[in-house]
Amino acid sequence: MDGYGAGPDQDMQNPLGKRGMELHPWLLKTRMFRKTFGTEGGSTGPDNDFAERAHQNVGAWILGRNMFSPVRGPWVNNDWKGWWGGNPPYHVPVFILTHHARDPIPMEGGTTFYFVTDGIESALKKAKEAAKNKDVRIGGGVSTVRQYLKAGLVDEMHLAYSPVFLGQGENLLAGLDLPGLGFKLAERVATEEATHIVLKTKNHAELTSPHETSFGQ
Amino acid sequence: MDGYGAGPDQDMQNPLGKRGMELHPWLLKTRMFRKTFGTEGGSTGPDNDFAERAHQNVGAWILGRNMFSPVRGPWVNNDWKGWWGGNPPYHVPVFILTHHARDPIPMEGGTTFYFVTDGIESALKKAKEAAKNKDVRIGGGVSTVRQYLKAGLVDEMHLAYSPVFLGQGENLLAGLDLPGLGFKLAERVATEEATHIVLKTKNHAELTSPHETSFGQ
Repeated sequence: MDGYGAGPDQDMQNPLGKRGMELHPWLLKTRMFRKTFGTEGGSTGPDNDFAERAHQNVGAWILGRNMFSPVRGPWVNNDWKGWWGGNPPYHVPVFILTHHARDPIPMEGGTTFYFVTDGIESALKKAKEAAKNKDVRIGGGVSTVRQYLKAGLVDEMHLAYSPVFLGQGENLLAGLDLPGLGFKLAERVATEEATHIVLKTKNHAELTSPHETSFGQ
Repeated sequence: MDGYGAGPDQDMQNPLGKRGMELHPWLLKTRMFRKTFGTEGGSTGPDNDFAERAHQNVGAWILGRNMFSPVRGPWVNNDWKGWWGGNPPYHVPVFILTHHARDPIPMEGGTTFYFVTDGIESALKKAKEAAKNKDVRIGGGVSTVRQYLKAGLVDEMHLAYSPVFLGQGENLLAGLDLPGLGFKLAERVATEEATHIVLKTKNHAELTSPHETSFGQ
């Protein structure tokens, strides 16, 4: 609720930074999330719908280096293969922004990690080619999302506001003028766990939700 | 939803800055608000409860100069008596922070505007004396709330998140570490119009809501 999309001081024990995991109870409780990591049960309401939509019609993902790894600087060896175990929850090509080249890593279940060293536009081009006619999803982290937003390369964005104040960490929207970047509110759904917002750029907007609201002026 | 508590460029036509009024439909629809300004009807759910609580047990208010007036600098004359007409919705003493002295203005209905030129702590002291055993409410604007937060002088805060992105204006929480200032989440209530949050300082906290959630660590 105070704008932070991740906590400070990411390390092995805190993949989302300190207290970062507190942002995500809405997700962790969903059937989609539990199924992804091999457990049963979970919620099936709007929170779960948003969790499922995150993977619908997605042909490729883009992640920042720090979302893939707590390691900074050159790759010391090839041991690190992401936070997600042998069968990551992507199942499609994943393009990782980094300054340090590395060979692709094919994983179980259809995920292959590709490392892109020539910038966000190049990564998007590669991801679009890999996704064919499907969508490219920018998974994070905060810095990566902000770079693509600033460059005007995002058509649609889902934001989930958990009732949490981190007070420090990585601020997602600070200094960004979303209406100025062409975004309009397309959906707002509040659950017990989070307030969900979907923004779409004017060109992309298809306002179909009963919660649709215009920015007005 | 992007942190702005008022729009930019306040003037006579835009008392809350450009697009600032878009932040407040949850309030304008309430029975409390309509009654205050002499109309009937209005909503009676949680939005209205929050509107009513804003006036319960309040013995004095503190406002910033810009919440009282679009005028900047010295008072040219004494014609301006606030945005609220002859009978303002306070009905108790109101202390206005300003660098420019002015005599008190008694209004209809129990409101008197006092002008305080020696700082926020002095205004709070005067307001506490005037409020006797009741609460002092800081009504705004954004800069005034931020000054009292930074000084550690706020025990409880209500935030209402409307589904609006202003993109520019006055950011309420930027750079403030609310957990670091001792605030804990005490309530979260989501309605069709807004997500309401109540924060209390640790010393002040009385966690009684079914929506209570701890900050954790």
